[in-house]
Amino acid sequence: METFDLADLAQKLFDDIRTLSFDGVGVTRDSYGDGESATANYLTRFAESEGLRVEVDRAANLIFSLPNDDANLPATWVGSHLDSVPQGGNFDGLAGIVAGLLCLVAQKRADEASSTPLRVIAFRGEESAWFGKAYMGSGAVFGKLSPEDLELKHRTTGKPLASYMKTVGADMDAIASGEILFDKTKARAYLELHIEQGPIMVARKVPLAVVPGIRGNVRHNQITCVGEAGHSGAVPRWLRHDAMVAVAELITRMDEHWSVLLERGIDLVITTGIVGTDPAEHSISRIPGTVSFSFEARSKSRETLEGFYQLMRSECTSIARERGVRFDFDRRLESAPATMDNALCEALVESCKRAEVVFETVPSGAGHDASLFANAGIPSSMLFIRNDNGSHNPHEAMDIGDFMVGVSVLADTIKRL
Amino acid sequence: METFDLADLAQKLFDDIRTLSFDGVGVTRDSYGDGESATANYLTRFAESEGLRVEVDRAANLIFSLPNDDANLPATWVGSHLDSVPQGGNFDGLAGIVAGLLCLVAQKRADEASSTPLRVIAFRGEESAWFGKAYMGSGAVFGKLSPEDLELKHRTTGKPLASYMKTVGADMDAIASGEILFDKTKARAYLELHIEQGPIMVARKVPLAVVPGIRGNVRHNQITCVGEAGHSGAVPRWLRHDAMVAVAELITRMDEHWSVLLERGIDLVITTGIVGTDPAEHSISRIPGTVSFSFEARSKSRETLEGFYQLMRSECTSIARERGVRFDFDRRLESAPATMDNALCEALVESCKRAEVVFETVPSGAGHDASLFANAGIPSSMLFIRNDNGSHNPHEAMDIGDFMVGVSVLADTIKRL
Repeated sequence: METFDLADLAQKLFDDIRTLSFDGVGVTRDSYGDGESATANYLTRFAESEGLRVEVDRAANLIFSLPNDDANLPATWVGSHLDSVPQGGNFDGLAGIVAGLLCLVAQKRADEASSTPLRVIAFRGEESAWFGKAYMGSGAVFGKLSPEDLELKHRTTGKPLASYMKTVGADMDAIASGEILFDKTKARAYLELHIEQGPIMVARKVPLAVVPGIRGNVRHNQITCVGEAGHSGAVPRWLRHDAMVAVAELITRMDEHWSVLLERGIDLVITTGIVGTDPAEHSISRIPGTVSFSFEARSKSRETLEGFYQLMRSECTSIARERGVRFDFDRRLESAPATMDNALCEALVESCKRAEVVFETVPSGAGHDASLFANAGIPSSMLFIRNDNGSHNPHEAMDIGDFMVGVSVLADTIKRL
Repeated sequence: METFDLADLAQKLFDDIRTLSFDGVGVTRDSYGDGESATANYLTRFAESEGLRVEVDRAANLIFSLPNDDANLPATWVGSHLDSVPQGGNFDGLAGIVAGLLCLVAQKRADEASSTPLRVIAFRGEESAWFGKAYMGSGAVFGKLSPEDLELKHRTTGKPLASYMKTVGADMDAIASGEILFDKTKARAYLELHIEQGPIMVARKVPLAVVPGIRGNVRHNQITCVGEAGHSGAVPRWLRHDAMVAVAELITRMDEHWSVLLERGIDLVITTGIVGTDPAEHSISRIPGTVSFSFEARSKSRETLEGFYQLMRSECTSIARERGVRFDFDRRLESAPATMDNALCEALVESCKRAEVVFETVPSGAGHDASLFANAGIPSSMLFIRNDNGSHNPHEAMDIGDFMVGVSVLADTIKRL
């Protein structure tokens, strides 16, 4: 197995991109915005300086390949995403793109193309933090963005997703009509290297993990509980319709249900990531009349997602009746769970063994662009790199040594496909 | 008993001031800000047009009197406040000032001064919505604003209370040193007419109520629950330190305690008026690392306030231990409960009977500037006017007929003191 000596280059790429997207706290590479585009531009210049070919697909994602790549041949695709959450970490997404690029650079420098050509795809718009929807860049190429999706509003500017995608050059007519922009016959496999976003690998002391499947999710970006505002000192408890107490009770009840389901061995995580009284009218002495919040459940099982979603809805109905409030729901969003390809997972396992690396099989709790490839019928798999402190925060801590081991495993698998 | 024929004038004052402070939804008369000052200026011009004397005290409150008022004589003071909450209602505070002014106008027009002179005081800065502290205007004249209070930050601009007070001309050296700016020997009584802010009088069909006492409160403007942020899909429940679930559980537990205490006949209302994940970092797919919220408890009993406060603190300790989170508390703020003067309440009762008005005795759940006069040892009482839909919202609905009956009762009591 080839040893990889590109650690200094990897470190420089991570450092440079951290610097250009640093926001004072973490990194901000906003989907279809300045931070993401700056990263795309940096990587384009880097790849060109290495003599690689750089193309932009019709959804404004970047595709990197060897200069003599024959686009008619089916390839091994390696991808991940350019964007980050606000004040996020440097490695979530970027690590997978850098890994793919290092494999390409190694092939180019050694003048040894893999027998199945390698193409690296850098997706825009993977994080749901910006428009309330994930996998926008990979969803666009698979014709999965609905007209409603394209109207989703940016978290701070309120402008629709479509206008942002158009600004960076995406073909909005094709995307809006659901045209499939990725030719599946030109994909033999899809591989994605990604930092682990949970605490499992650090706890188990394994630097690498092969991913057998990816959790799906069901979401509402905004549920609004509408009660009745009133003076905090003058309305007795029996006459109150306090939206905040109602939402607190819902969150508490769902946490109790979750705990019970886990004891029964069901795969599930639930999160209320956004909660707020209305800043335009809230005050310490005012009973909250409206409270908005998000809802998310993730599971490897479609049945669990549907069952838990219905449980949440029925708890809302129950609390609404008991407290005289109302719950208004925005559009329900879903991402299907995805199963990784057995043969491809086995190939990664084989490369880990050849490299004599300690590894385990760890399912992905977070969603990834790989889900869309898997659900489109393209054999897909993922390789996780150990990472401390989780992701979506500035404290992501991936060791560059672990990363380079992952890159060499990835390169080995690519070579043997 | 004199009949009052100033209903048209009252309506005009309410309408004009609503217009000048309308914000598109309700009225916004920000404490020590533009909305409050515009109201003060309007009332100054009105009072001068009626031939009344207008003075400004050293805390920038307005004082209205007859032109030949002898400032050395003890007076009956009638007061309330100029300011409103954001998107608030037109009558909370303003009704009491207009009532006092109408009494003065009637005395002036009839050239019949009451034997105890009448002085009307229009306080600035009563609402806690702007700086997180109530009774700033009346607190200032009684030397009750601490240096910490003066540093409290404005809800939107973040600038300190002291700078706002200075802008409208308050004597900040005197206020900061705790100097008492109100000569108690010049006050025989303090009366305040106010809309009821709860639903009791509408439910009981009584237009007027005499107030025997005012609830005190204990508050925190901001408690911050600090947990640990993480990726919503990748951190299992047993490794989470979710600040939002912790705060939801606290609110739910306190609501349960409240319900039990009410069954035991204890006077108490509690409110969490402000709750929010951090907009700079929250997202649907991020476990909330910090959540900020306010806390308020009100009761007629100091012991209940202290006991419930300690219960809240011990629940925070318990939840912190169970969920691996931390609660950080800002400064504890308090307003003492206040008892109204018996003889003065009896005088209002007598005036109600003379006017043959249906009335009841209703304690005040909300705090009022009258508390500060009562706790300073000045005989004080309040008259509530029936009002639908509560206060601190644009739907306050006080009937002008009810109001005028209240004004005539107030005028009768003033005449007989």
